[in-house]
Amino acid sequence: MIDPDLLSTMRQEMRRGSVVLLCLLALRQPDYGYALLKSLESSGLTTDANTLYPLLRRLERQGLLTSEWVTDDPRPRKYYRTSEMGSEVAALLLDDWAAMTRSLDHFHRGETT
Amino acid sequence: MIDPDLLSTMRQEMRRGSVVLLCLLALRQPDYGYALLKSLESSGLTTDANTLYPLLRRLERQGLLTSEWVTDDPRPRKYYRTSEMGSEVAALLLDDWAAMTRSLDHFHRGETT
Repeated sequence: MIDPDLLSTMRQEMRRGSVVLLCLLALRQPDYGYALLKSLESSGLTTDANTLYPLLRRLERQGLLTSEWVTDDPRPRKYYRTSEMGSEVAALLLDDWAAMTRSLDHFHRGETT
Repeated sequence: MIDPDLLSTMRQEMRRGSVVLLCLLALRQPDYGYALLKSLESSGLTTDANTLYPLLRRLERQGLLTSEWVTDDPRPRKYYRTSEMGSEVAALLLDDWAAMTRSLDHFHRGETT
């Protein structure tokens, strides 16, 4: 009954903004793309490399992440870390998230009362 | 220090998907656009008519809302109501929201431990 394409688009739309916030929070501990992907997955958020990797590059361009190549391992890896500005942005987005959660709770409760 | 345009874009991006969910939840009680706008505002979510009204029309086109003109009052008003399909979509998006909130909590706690 529900158009699967429509539903998929709506879910992606809702997820897109929050993935940014998740990355900014997670990368206060420096990590490389694939490890972050796995870490997001194990926290319950499914995303994919084709979404995440360009996002990390974009956040770096915007100054919200910094990056550093680590070449100690056989395979060099680019580690990302949340910048000071990234932390400030994350704090503001968290406030927004909390406000949206309160709104959602308000209207969700409306159903049962 | 934070580029205000960048921050504004990120906040809008994060808000966009959740406004859909809020509308679907709120309109289980039929309401007209302006009243919904005020109701969203009083729940803590600031949006504007130029965002909300086209969204309501889009959700109606997608079959997630139905509408009915009420002409009892001096000024005819179009009342929107969440359709059965809209309620099903809202339930799925609420699950997603809960999962994202758990992920956010996970990484947010990461800061302080």
